[in-house]
Amino acid sequence: MPPSLDQARVALAAQPFSRLLGAQLNRFGPDGVELRVPVCPAHRQQHGFAHGGRLGYAADNALTFAAGAVAGPEGLTAGYTINVLAPVLGDRLLARAWVISAGQRLIVTRCELIEPHPAGDRLSAIAHCTIARTTYIAGLGVG
Amino acid sequence: MPPSLDQARVALAAQPFSRLLGAQLNRFGPDGVELRVPVCPAHRQQHGFAHGGRLGYAADNALTFAAGAVAGPEGLTAGYTINVLAPVLGDRLLARAWVISAGQRLIVTRCELIEPHPAGDRLSAIAHCTIARTTYIAGLGVG
Amino acid sequence: MPPSLDQARVALAAQPFSRLLGAQLNRFGPDGVELRVPVCPAHRQQHGFAHGGRLGYAADNALTFAAGAVAGPEGLTAGYTINVLAPVLGDRLLARAWVISAGQRLIVTRCELIEPHPAGDRLSAIAHCTIARTTYIAGLGVG
Amino acid sequence: MPPSLDQARVALAAQPFSRLLGAQLNRFGPDGVELRVPVCPAHRQQHGFAHGGRLGYAADNALTFAAGAVAGPEGLTAGYTINVLAPVLGDRLLARAWVISAGQRLIVTRCELIEPHPAGDRLSAIAHCTIARTTYIAGLGVG
Repeated sequence: MPPSLDQARVALAAQPFSRLLGAQLNRFGPDGVELRVPVCPAHRQQHGFAHGGRLGYAADNALTFAAGAVAGPEGLTAGYTINVLAPVLGDRLLARAWVISAGQRLIVTRCELIEPHPAGDRLSAIAHCTIARTTYIAGLGVG
Repeated sequence: MPPSLDQARVALAAQPFSRLLGAQLNRFGPDGVELRVPVCPAHRQQHGFAHGGRLGYAADNALTFAAGAVAGPEGLTAGYTINVLAPVLGDRLLARAWVISAGQRLIVTRCELIEPHPAGDRLSAIAHCTIARTTYIAGLGVG
Repeated sequence: MPPSLDQARVALAAQPFSRLLGAQLNRFGPDGVELRVPVCPAHRQQHGFAHGGRLGYAADNALTFAAGAVAGPEGLTAGYTINVLAPVLGDRLLARAWVISAGQRLIVTRCELIEPHPAGDRLSAIAHCTIARTTYIAGLGVG
Repeated sequence: MPPSLDQARVALAAQPFSRLLGAQLNRFGPDGVELRVPVCPAHRQQHGFAHGGRLGYAADNALTFAAGAVAGPEGLTAGYTINVLAPVLGDRLLARAWVISAGQRLIVTRCELIEPHPAGDRLSAIAHCTIARTTYIAGLGVG
């Protein structure tokens, strides 16, 4: 049975890297997840844009949690593709992700990184991900 | 003219996100770059593995610097694909990257994330990246 | 100025590979394109599913035409990512694609390969693509 | 036990799409595979370059056969990423692929599409692929 929003928040808080970078779960369910990620001065590259690794973290976590909301908490990301569409100058991002396809072993999820703007939200990046279910991870001797 | 190793180290140090995560350039030149990235307790997920976002940061930076060693410092990553091959339990990674193809506008680079082991290095992830040269960035109104 | 549906059909018919494989444009405009691709016995692999290369062709063409509907006919695909979600057993596919982001040099498009079913269409694959505009191609000395 | 070169040739010949497009296996083994793919007039796009779908087919097949040389013949491609580096004007390609990582459920392979030139071979495209082993496919109800 998939975790609840509260359980997902506990799982997120159990990630030291997420505590370091400061992410929060706004929404978590089989219809998708939304992660709110601050973009602090420490998260930028030399031109003041959010660092690509900052975007990668947000996408990776949202993609994985979206799978977890359908398949339970034990999936591991087998990899992802991210397309950066626009530089992020503001101080926060929304990472929205949802399941595109749920197979017995693999799940494909999609993520949109959105920079909220008063004049209309801006799509900053899109990402896709393949997540292996628990049995796959057990098979790899990872879990 | 591409930057020197010293100039590249200055550029890396100018990235607040890299200072936060603590990366160092071991090697930088047209033949490729090597980034040394510590994997601290704060960089892990809930099972103690290096967080996928930690790997994504290392790959993104190595991929971009590899392009910079050929094309100068102003490129921006248009996106990347990362395949995670094995979980990282140790306390450091080497991110090696080099140019596969250098066009007039776009550069394709490849990265290997390697976990050093006394018994033999382990390939933890591979990544690929397309980087836009300066003129492209100017075209986007980014630079 | 982007081509009309009739002009796009002429461009498609000018591709020998598309004549060989037999694709037709149902729809073509800035809101997206739809390509109808037959899946003949000659387009299958050894298990009777549509060959991955058949899917790749359909995605590649739809992704590129979607960019062409916004940016004109001269773009070339810099690469694409395809995720195969379900095997295709039927005798035709719809390849729908649209622009996600249109920069001055690069365009990102998305494609869905759909197998029509009386009981409901089935999503067979998703794909993403980065397309370089003409100036980029000219820069490469390609056009 | 992985198939022999002769068995792999039989498998390739059993693919109607490969018969249509005319591929031949030069080499097949755990160290990698090489596929020779003609680029006929019928395989081109409107500018005379090999069609992106032609490249996708070659990459897809080489990537999958490289996995098959390690894991047996029943894998199915879960998707691939291809970066096109240079247009192909000549009349044949070599598709070389090999295994990067072989897990219990998933295999990652890499492919290089090479256009042979008297003055030196040219790297036309690179591709990567995740292939699911038989049990995964059985799990999907595909095999």
